[in-house]
Amino acid sequence: MAETERIDAAQAAAFLRGADNIRLLAHAAPDGDTLGANNALCLALRMLGKRADVACADDIPPRYAFLAVPPEPADFIPRVYVSVDVADAKLLGENEEMGRQAALCVDHHPSNRLYAARTLLDPEASSACEVVADVIDELGVEITPDIAARIYTGLATDTGCFRFGNTGAKALRLAARLLEAGAPAARINKRLFDTVSRQRLAAERLVLQGLEYYEDGRVALVVLSQAMRKETGIEEADMEGFASLTARIEGVIIGVTVRERDDGGYKLSLRTNGGVDASAICARFGGGGHKAAAGCRMPGPVEDVRRAILAAAREALEAYDRAARSE
Amino acid sequence: MAETERIDAAQAAAFLRGADNIRLLAHAAPDGDTLGANNALCLALRMLGKRADVACADDIPPRYAFLAVPPEPADFIPRVYVSVDVADAKLLGENEEMGRQAALCVDHHPSNRLYAARTLLDPEASSACEVVADVIDELGVEITPDIAARIYTGLATDTGCFRFGNTGAKALRLAARLLEAGAPAARINKRLFDTVSRQRLAAERLVLQGLEYYEDGRVALVVLSQAMRKETGIEEADMEGFASLTARIEGVIIGVTVRERDDGGYKLSLRTNGGVDASAICARFGGGGHKAAAGCRMPGPVEDVRRAILAAAREALEAYDRAARSE
Repeated sequence: MAETERIDAAQAAAFLRGADNIRLLAHAAPDGDTLGANNALCLALRMLGKRADVACADDIPPRYAFLAVPPEPADFIPRVYVSVDVADAKLLGENEEMGRQAALCVDHHPSNRLYAARTLLDPEASSACEVVADVIDELGVEITPDIAARIYTGLATDTGCFRFGNTGAKALRLAARLLEAGAPAARINKRLFDTVSRQRLAAERLVLQGLEYYEDGRVALVVLSQAMRKETGIEEADMEGFASLTARIEGVIIGVTVRERDDGGYKLSLRTNGGVDASAICARFGGGGHKAAAGCRMPGPVEDVRRAILAAAREALEAYDRAARSE
Repeated sequence: MAETERIDAAQAAAFLRGADNIRLLAHAAPDGDTLGANNALCLALRMLGKRADVACADDIPPRYAFLAVPPEPADFIPRVYVSVDVADAKLLGENEEMGRQAALCVDHHPSNRLYAARTLLDPEASSACEVVADVIDELGVEITPDIAARIYTGLATDTGCFRFGNTGAKALRLAARLLEAGAPAARINKRLFDTVSRQRLAAERLVLQGLEYYEDGRVALVVLSQAMRKETGIEEADMEGFASLTARIEGVIIGVTVRERDDGGYKLSLRTNGGVDASAICARFGGGGHKAAAGCRMPGPVEDVRRAILAAAREALEAYDRAARSE
């Protein structure tokens, strides 16, 4: 594989200015950031008179439907692929091959695999939307209310509405600009952070019933089975938020959410406190992610999954305790 | 009562520069904003070489203990009273008399009673902390990490961590400055907005189990019994947050939380969407409040409480439907 060319926002803008018939790529199991960033950039490119659309292997969850831009007419033939918020071409699902041909990747994940011909990677950014805002500024495109709403959504969802540790001064100043540009922040916040569905509450109830504590309450684990999903009628996408719950519990250092997949395998989401490296734990099982939030997959059965992740969590806690003692 | 003098931040700073031996006043039942704003201003005044302290009629809740500044030595005699985030002297509890003598009030509540000799009132500000930041800037005092932490706390608590509709561009830019000045925002957010106790989760589970829907899911009702409180070991105060849950559920117009009191009676909290008047419903049972949030009491037994409030809710929904049809 040829090495990627690392570029800055001005260079990314220069590349995009010279391109046309652009297909933007959002990762599978799309979230607010990949949808906000891709659709915001798409609108900006169209304002420059270019043809562009956004492709995603999976359906857009209803809560994010407002982010989608109208499709190009049927005669649209993409000539340039640009992935946004996609750390690895594999994360594109059935669009993986398009990702392997990507001329440009715009991202904020430190774990980015540098698979594109050019990569604009800002690992300090809270969200892909924060990076896309830089590109749009470099393109000289005005932030319209429609663009502002999309960038705001990604910024807000990836920072837990400016609550998480990745919220920097730059993200807050960008949010201020987006409000002034017409982003309907209060409406978006109410919809995304305040409204819960009955299914979601029913699922939460099951999650709380199934919550298990280990290691003197320093590890919390919850298993979400297919049966629970069926009982509550909740979509896979709606289960996203549960991953963070475990690590929000007082005293919990490592929170683990285990989701049973359609194929019978298991997807694990880890959230950690106190500097314990979630991505290092997940790497042992072929996964990865960020220091405080990472994921991996295991084949099952669920008893093996529980045993394996609890053993790894215990080792990580032992290292954590050793480090605390030597400080 | 002599009329107050309305002044701006520069005039408030000029007044404070000429004053000394200042007692700052936080409202009773103190929250993050009154504690953050008073203690931040106290630190700024001390940096100018002045003697100043903060008084509050009630104990500081443990979650806000980190906001308190060290007291002045025992020989400190306050000569000037300044109230911050206090719309009415009555809200000072047993310090009400000090409030009536206040030389200055710094506030953001549109309902401020203008009881102080001078009033700096910015009803557009998200929080008293946002107004205090203006005063500190006018005083020419540098925002130290300790001051930044306090202003940030008030800003974050009064805006629901930048989620509520009162979050303006000015609040977001101020937050950015505070991060740069050393406010440990991630730690504060985690402590105030992210951490939940195991008891709280156990209580949430019981609440979700007891959730009842009526009128095609347009009314949600939950009963919190004394037995549930005992089972989970949760304090009465910790149950406050549950009142807002019912009306956050998709499709719910009227959310009702019924809490059994120590004396066997019941306290009802109503939250409404779509303009249904919660205070009108509660007024029928001798209660009151705001349009979207109100409360009342009923003697019980719980079956009577349920029947009475559901009948009133149904009538309110019928009026709501009539109004919708005639639009």
